[in-house]
Amino acid sequence: MASQYPPSLRICLPLFLLFLEVAFILLFSFLVSYDYDPQSIQKGVTVYPEFQDVNIMVVLGFAFLLASLKGFGFSSTGFCLLLAAFGIQWTVIVNGFLFHFSEGNIKMNLQRIVEGLVSLTTVLVSMGAILGKVNLMQLVWMALVEVTLFAVNRWVAVTVLQIESYTSLMHVHLFGALFGVMASWGISRSRQESRPEKEGSNPVSDTFAMLGTLFLWAFWPSFNAILITQRKAKLAAIYNTYLGMTASAVAAFAISVATSRHGKLTMAHIRNATLAGGVALGISASAIHYPWVAMAVGLAAGATSVLGFVFLKKNLEPAVRIHDTCGVLYTFGLPSLLGGIAHVIWIVIDSQENLSAGGYSALAEGGALCLSMAIGLAGGLITGFSLRLKLWKEPPVTQYFVDQTYWEFPHFAVGY
Amino acid sequence: MASQYPPSLRICLPLFLLFLEVAFILLFSFLVSYDYDPQSIQKGVTVYPEFQDVNIMVVLGFAFLLASLKGFGFSSTGFCLLLAAFGIQWTVIVNGFLFHFSEGNIKMNLQRIVEGLVSLTTVLVSMGAILGKVNLMQLVWMALVEVTLFAVNRWVAVTVLQIESYTSLMHVHLFGALFGVMASWGISRSRQESRPEKEGSNPVSDTFAMLGTLFLWAFWPSFNAILITQRKAKLAAIYNTYLGMTASAVAAFAISVATSRHGKLTMAHIRNATLAGGVALGISASAIHYPWVAMAVGLAAGATSVLGFVFLKKNLEPAVRIHDTCGVLYTFGLPSLLGGIAHVIWIVIDSQENLSAGGYSALAEGGALCLSMAIGLAGGLITGFSLRLKLWKEPPVTQYFVDQTYWEFPHFAVGY
Amino acid sequence: MASQYPPSLRICLPLFLLFLEVAFILLFSFLVSYDYDPQSIQKGVTVYPEFQDVNIMVVLGFAFLLASLKGFGFSSTGFCLLLAAFGIQWTVIVNGFLFHFSEGNIKMNLQRIVEGLVSLTTVLVSMGAILGKVNLMQLVWMALVEVTLFAVNRWVAVTVLQIESYTSLMHVHLFGALFGVMASWGISRSRQESRPEKEGSNPVSDTFAMLGTLFLWAFWPSFNAILITQRKAKLAAIYNTYLGMTASAVAAFAISVATSRHGKLTMAHIRNATLAGGVALGISASAIHYPWVAMAVGLAAGATSVLGFVFLKKNLEPAVRIHDTCGVLYTFGLPSLLGGIAHVIWIVIDSQENLSAGGYSALAEGGALCLSMAIGLAGGLITGFSLRLKLWKEPPVTQYFVDQTYWEFPHFAVGY
Repeated sequence: MASQYPPSLRICLPLFLLFLEVAFILLFSFLVSYDYDPQSIQKGVTVYPEFQDVNIMVVLGFAFLLASLKGFGFSSTGFCLLLAAFGIQWTVIVNGFLFHFSEGNIKMNLQRIVEGLVSLTTVLVSMGAILGKVNLMQLVWMALVEVTLFAVNRWVAVTVLQIESYTSLMHVHLFGALFGVMASWGISRSRQESRPEKEGSNPVSDTFAMLGTLFLWAFWPSFNAILITQRKAKLAAIYNTYLGMTASAVAAFAISVATSRHGKLTMAHIRNATLAGGVALGISASAIHYPWVAMAVGLAAGATSVLGFVFLKKNLEPAVRIHDTCGVLYTFGLPSLLGGIAHVIWIVIDSQENLSAGGYSALAEGGALCLSMAIGLAGGLITGFSLRLKLWKEPPVTQYFVDQTYWEFPHFAVGY
Repeated sequence: MASQYPPSLRICLPLFLLFLEVAFILLFSFLVSYDYDPQSIQKGVTVYPEFQDVNIMVVLGFAFLLASLKGFGFSSTGFCLLLAAFGIQWTVIVNGFLFHFSEGNIKMNLQRIVEGLVSLTTVLVSMGAILGKVNLMQLVWMALVEVTLFAVNRWVAVTVLQIESYTSLMHVHLFGALFGVMASWGISRSRQESRPEKEGSNPVSDTFAMLGTLFLWAFWPSFNAILITQRKAKLAAIYNTYLGMTASAVAAFAISVATSRHGKLTMAHIRNATLAGGVALGISASAIHYPWVAMAVGLAAGATSVLGFVFLKKNLEPAVRIHDTCGVLYTFGLPSLLGGIAHVIWIVIDSQENLSAGGYSALAEGGALCLSMAIGLAGGLITGFSLRLKLWKEPPVTQYFVDQTYWEFPHFAVGY
Repeated sequence: MASQYPPSLRICLPLFLLFLEVAFILLFSFLVSYDYDPQSIQKGVTVYPEFQDVNIMVVLGFAFLLASLKGFGFSSTGFCLLLAAFGIQWTVIVNGFLFHFSEGNIKMNLQRIVEGLVSLTTVLVSMGAILGKVNLMQLVWMALVEVTLFAVNRWVAVTVLQIESYTSLMHVHLFGALFGVMASWGISRSRQESRPEKEGSNPVSDTFAMLGTLFLWAFWPSFNAILITQRKAKLAAIYNTYLGMTASAVAAFAISVATSRHGKLTMAHIRNATLAGGVALGISASAIHYPWVAMAVGLAAGATSVLGFVFLKKNLEPAVRIHDTCGVLYTFGLPSLLGGIAHVIWIVIDSQENLSAGGYSALAEGGALCLSMAIGLAGGLITGFSLRLKLWKEPPVTQYFVDQTYWEFPHFAVGY
């Protein structure tokens, strides 16, 4: 079926994976020990149910959201699992080294795993932009670089700009989307054979993807609240996220029908734009005081997301020669930017009494947002270029979006 | 493929949805504020894991349970998500207005969202009866009316009949099933072209539906227990529901094979009747003292449900010209009625010492049950008639049960 | 399509199921009452979120993991639900009788259900070895026998060998795998018509199975920690299991590619071997002090599992005429044995100060492991022979691995 066979990864990939895994085990043996401080135990036991919500979101929700490509379901779900398994180990080391390193030791507890899972979201978001166009070695490489850069980005935001650690982690969507889009640009800049017939979805793959969406939609309040320890703020984040997502779901349905020539819904809009409310409220979920504000933000985010899919994906992408497989720029990038800007505006509004403090705070938050965007864009571009190195044995364009490139298919079925 | 094109909803649906969403945002801005009372915070944090179980049941379990229609999976899951997102906002307002309104203000907390989710179940149950025969505008309209009527029904039961709020909420299954069946009768009373070939399932859609069933089956104990605050009663509800569902699963398998000519299982029975135990125990789960009673109720409910599918669906439905797409009368209606009657009997048995109090209580519970049935039947009928108004642009019969009526299909695949 | 029709179960199966269910209800009415001791209530409320994780694993995770057979998805998920519903009732009685019987009474609480769910895992694991080759009566019979033998096995280990109840329960994977493989050998010893074309998977069934894997992968920490009440040990089990599973996922991907001729991944390896880390750490998850140890065990377990699939499944199985449908020996058997042996070694290493106590403890643990293996092997063999009795109306070989043998198929579709 293919005119050109992809290079075999039989030697390189196992060596690469096992080498890294052994290196991780050695790093853990020298650097990481468990933290059984009574307070950590208390926190760990308390946060465990929320941790499992977020764990399912990362391992299953994102994996199935990406499974909408009709002939690429094994890779979407399988690669996502590997990146999660791999990434979590590396994030514990990197985050531990930058934020929790004392006396030559990283104390590991459930909070560290949670921070790791949230950081990892950058990788799963970026993966959505380059899915189908890179092999597993390239994805693992991207994950290692991206997680590291995001941790460095956070370190600057937290130590230099004095942003709260929680807020800096909630830049994951914006960072991941921009990183992924630029990485995709870096990979594909010189070859523009589009293969739309392979890239599409079919009703079964769309239903699997809907399953991912529903998990993400239902558990998103946990995602936005899990890092908050103060109980009132945690509940505020839950309420606001929940209401924001209801409004973005309504916006997704309304705008999807309004922008369709036949007045019909488009599955890709529903699957993605319903989540925009949760994305937009990531940074400010705990800071909003009124339910209607959260709903208004969710409505705007859902509408922005669908409009992005309809107008930017068709017009902008060919113009600047970007190829964003799952449209992460519109699902995660734009809503997150919208939420970030709204967050800065609220800080200004909230600080009527103490304008100088509020002004500084708004500047810092805005600066952190710009920093995340800058590092995301630059890091994605450099990573994209680095992914074109010969050593990764990148797949030929004819092998894009096809599970058979990476998986044994005893059943010979093409796609579903 | 279709001889008659469905009317385009391009203008009406977005206007309708956005108008309502903006109205909700305005209502929230004037009426609703967050409740950060220390006691509410404590309750909210405690109930959160159970809330997520029920949230997944509503958003994902019911959605996939309805996804058994082979060519209607997008609509089943998508419309369910929209109704949940929409309905929850309206239930918070309606329930808040009727039950928690003080000083011009509705205090919102997690308990309010939980009550909303449980109330919303009426809509998702009713949806199962008319699925495939109405468009999204009609569904949204039905949801608004049904949630309102159910809240009024509860208000009468709680204030006039002095029923506990918890018990009144557990009438959702009975109310929803009768409402849905009558709405379906109202819609289709004059047109009886059956299109069985489109309405069926296929193995993939059946497996997706099984996924919904398994979520509902596993999380049903949370559904029956979430509204109970007293810890002993909560655990009783969990234990009884769990045991009742094991027995109804056994009954479903046994009776399904026994009523089949070839001694084989029917997927529709398994998918639905296994849940009958949880439905039947909705009202009385916390009041049963002995495990074997819960098991006996579950066994009876499972058997009733399968027998309903086998005998009533084939004989009664054509006779009275009712069309119940997913058989909600047998999955939710009959088991719930059975459980309600059993509940009244137990009250009488339990009150041997104080016959007059027990008698009054039994009368009140029985009256509330009749009230729910009466309002469900009458409300469903009126709503069904109202759904035939020209302004809803109802789909032609040739477009029933087909995703293409409402969704863009770039892949041109018919069904799965 | 089939040359030979399977015997109808229309009379036997319902009678068998209903007789057993009524017997259970009677047993419950005489023996079981609810335990509302304040301490039990406290424990029940605390453990409930973890209980739901394990419940989903058993009811949904294992069911969908088994759903990889392309034409057997209804049976995989449906039969699993029935066995869970049935088995849990019987385990409560058997475990209660052997471990918690006092004054003619079994006190039931959430801990009892949790123990039951964990015990039940033996049945779901064994089911993976004989799936497709037996009917529902045979499966129910196997479940009853296996749960009983496992409880007896545990009773000997706990009372004679003085093993902790928690540890004895974690032998489920090893016991279940050996029991299943021997039962499969007992069933099929004289007939070796292989029907590989029916037994395979297809991309949709593989994706459903991947869904099961992801749930199991994400919730496995809950499985290994749920029986532990001491909070520090519980968190240790969660951390170690989580890290062990990340390492086994990496191993699964690396070794799967390395052992493939074309350098490609095999879905069956990924689906199963990624779980090996959690299986291997079942016994010792709470006893490991260093994260790197858990990661090293996970890495070894994942590698062992894939190597078992690659070398033993192809070479050993035909030689000894074993047919292990889902490869449970490699997913659960070998990793669990590896973990058990490692556990014994650690006990010896940990007991440098008090060699005699450590030696006795190591002997006891090793003995318990051998006991579980012996009873698993012998019990499986005897059960396998007993399953060949005429009274079970076993299906003809031509009807293996086909849903139509047991389910009404109005859609006439063969497989997906």
